[in-house]
Amino acid sequence: MRIENLYVVIMAGGIGSRFWPYSRNAKPKQFIDVLGVGKTLLQMTYDRFKNLASEDNIYVVSNQQYGNIIKDQIEGISDHQVLLEPTRRNTAPCIAYAAYKIRKKDPNAVIVVSPADHAIFGETEYLNCISKAVQSTVESDKLITLGIQPTRPETGYGYIQFFESDEQVKKVKTFTEKPQLDLAKTFLASGDFVWNAGIFIWSVESIINAFEAHLSEVAELFAEGSDHYFTDSESDFIKTAYSHSKNISIDYGIMEKAENVYVVLGDFGWSDLGSWNSLYDIKDKDQDENVVTGNNALFYGSKNNLVHSNPKKVVLVQDLDGYLIADFDDVLVICKKDEEAKFREFVADVKQKKGDNYL
Amino acid sequence: MRIENLYVVIMAGGIGSRFWPYSRNAKPKQFIDVLGVGKTLLQMTYDRFKNLASEDNIYVVSNQQYGNIIKDQIEGISDHQVLLEPTRRNTAPCIAYAAYKIRKKDPNAVIVVSPADHAIFGETEYLNCISKAVQSTVESDKLITLGIQPTRPETGYGYIQFFESDEQVKKVKTFTEKPQLDLAKTFLASGDFVWNAGIFIWSVESIINAFEAHLSEVAELFAEGSDHYFTDSESDFIKTAYSHSKNISIDYGIMEKAENVYVVLGDFGWSDLGSWNSLYDIKDKDQDENVVTGNNALFYGSKNNLVHSNPKKVVLVQDLDGYLIADFDDVLVICKKDEEAKFREFVADVKQKKGDNYL
Repeated sequence: MRIENLYVVIMAGGIGSRFWPYSRNAKPKQFIDVLGVGKTLLQMTYDRFKNLASEDNIYVVSNQQYGNIIKDQIEGISDHQVLLEPTRRNTAPCIAYAAYKIRKKDPNAVIVVSPADHAIFGETEYLNCISKAVQSTVESDKLITLGIQPTRPETGYGYIQFFESDEQVKKVKTFTEKPQLDLAKTFLASGDFVWNAGIFIWSVESIINAFEAHLSEVAELFAEGSDHYFTDSESDFIKTAYSHSKNISIDYGIMEKAENVYVVLGDFGWSDLGSWNSLYDIKDKDQDENVVTGNNALFYGSKNNLVHSNPKKVVLVQDLDGYLIADFDDVLVICKKDEEAKFREFVADVKQKKGDNYL
Repeated sequence: MRIENLYVVIMAGGIGSRFWPYSRNAKPKQFIDVLGVGKTLLQMTYDRFKNLASEDNIYVVSNQQYGNIIKDQIEGISDHQVLLEPTRRNTAPCIAYAAYKIRKKDPNAVIVVSPADHAIFGETEYLNCISKAVQSTVESDKLITLGIQPTRPETGYGYIQFFESDEQVKKVKTFTEKPQLDLAKTFLASGDFVWNAGIFIWSVESIINAFEAHLSEVAELFAEGSDHYFTDSESDFIKTAYSHSKNISIDYGIMEKAENVYVVLGDFGWSDLGSWNSLYDIKDKDQDENVVTGNNALFYGSKNNLVHSNPKKVVLVQDLDGYLIADFDDVLVICKKDEEAKFREFVADVKQKKGDNYL
C-alpha cells in the first residue's frame, strides 16, 4: 500500500570500480544488471519503492553525467525528479538538495533516502521496516536509519550500536566506521550492533532542522534555492550552490552528532554489493560452490569460483579455486575472488598502463 | 629462384580442434592467423612456396566445404588450382588426385607436398632443403621426405630413422609413429632419428610408379581421371573416385613400404602446431615465461601462461602458473596448458553439452 506524503530519494551518484570491468566510469554499477536478473540495480530500487510511494514522488540524485542513463532506465520519470549534481560533494549536500526541493512541494513530506546500488532480498520485510519507520517519523522528529542484523564479522561495513529496548524504533548509541576484524567479532558477539545500510527515514521538517543545527552553512546554501526549485533556474542555482558547498557525508555531518537518531532493525537479507566477493556471497552455488551468473560455465576440478560473463558465451574452467572470472567486452579479469585490496591495485594499474578507456 | 617444372601441393583439409576455440569446424587452424602475424597459416605456406614455384603451379587440396575460404585467402588462385575433396580419405588419395592431375599438365613435373598448417621459422634454410631434394629427384626416382633435427624427446611426432652417410640425401631405414617417452629419449640420444614433418618431394613419375606398386587400386582410380582433369567434368569424376577410394595415409600406404625412400635433414625451426602448448613453445616469452599473442595482458604473480585473445582486449591474470587462456567470441577457455589429453575431453564435453555450434 502506498503512503501519502511519502517521498523517496534514490542516491545514484557512485562511480565505484569495484565491479570492474562490468561497472565502468561511464556506467557505474547502479546502472548495470549486477545480479543478472534483467534489471539494473537502479531499476530494482525504483520498482521496489513504487510499492510504497507514488511514482511522481520518487526522486533520483546523481552526477549530471548520468542524467541520460537515468532517463533511459526509468521510463516516464520527469526532469524535475532527476536531481543532477554538477560535482561530487558526498551525501550531505545531496540529501540537503533533495530535502529543500521536496519541502517546497510538500512541507509535510516524509522522506526515505536510499542508495541505488545495494541488493535487498526480503522485499516484503524490507518494506515493512520502512513503513514502521515512516509511521514513527510522522509522530516525532526522529531521524531513523535502518540497521541490518549482522550475520558475520564483516569489516567492510559501518556498525550502529543501539540502546536495547522493547520499542520497534530504538535509540542509537554510537556509529562506528568499518572496524578491524577483532572489533567486528566483538560487535557481532555483543548483540547490540547492527550494520549501517545507509537507508534513512525522516520527515522533511526533521532533517532540515538537523541541517540547521549541525551543518548550518549547507542549510543556508540550499534554503536559498526555494525560489528556483521546480523552475528553469534550478540547474544554474545548483551549480553555484555546489561550488560553495562542503564535501561531507550525512553520517559524519549529522547522524553521528544529532541526539534524535534512531534505528529500526531489519533482517531482510541485504548486501551493499561492495565487491565481486559480496556478489558471490549472495548467489546460489553449485555442488562445488561455484557461482555462474548465467548457465554457461563448465567447471573441471574447480570450486569456489565466480564466473560473470555474457550468458551466451561458454566459459570453460579447469583447476581453479576461489577465482573471479569476469569477462566483459574489452576486458577479461581472472583473479583471486577475495583479495579486494589487490583488486583495487590491479584496477589502478590498468588505468595507468592501458588508459582511462578501460575503466 | 624459381624452379621450372616445380609444382606444389598444399594439403589444407584438416579439421583439427586442437586450437579450439580459435580453430573451429567451420574454419580450422590452417585458415586462421594462429601465430598472430597478420596472415593465416595457409597464406604463409602459399607465400613461402611462391619463392620456388610459379603461382600457377601451386595447388591446394582441401575438403569441398573450405573451397570459398581458400579462394578468399589466396588472391588470384584459379579454380583448377583448388582441388576439392568430397569426403575425407586421408593423405594417399589426396596426393594421388594431385599427382595424376599434374601429370596430365606436365609429365616432367616435380612435386612438393606440404601441409598448410605447420610453422617454419628459418625460411631460407627450409627452401634450401627443398631445392636440394628437388635437385635429387630430377636425376632419380627417389621419394624424399624432409626430416627435422629433433630438439627434445617429443612424443607427439613420428620419427624417421636413416642410414648415416655423407650424402645430403640419405636412405631411410624405418618410420616410427608417435613413440612413448622412453623410446623418444632413445631416438634423440641415438642421433639417427629425425622428426617426420609430412613434407614430401618427388617427381610425378616416381610417385605414380609408387602408387602403381603399392596402392594399385588407388592408382587405377585416379589414372582413369586423365580425360577429366582440367575440364568441367573433373568434379563429378572426383566424387565417384572418392566414393570408391580407400582411406589410407601416404606414410602407411607408400612411404613405409617403398624401397626408394630418402630423407633430407633440415634444421630450420619447425612446429606442427599440433596443440596450444606447441604454440607456447615457439613464441617469445616475457621474463616470467608468459606468452601473449598480442600486447594486451597484465600478469600479477603469474608465470608460464599462454594468453590468446583479441589483441584489443585487456586480459588481467593473477596467480596462475602454466595456464592457457584462450578467449574467442563465444568461448573462453581457462585450462592447464600442457594437459592435451584432458583438453580433448573438454572439447568433446562442450560438444555434448553445448552443441556443435561451439566447435
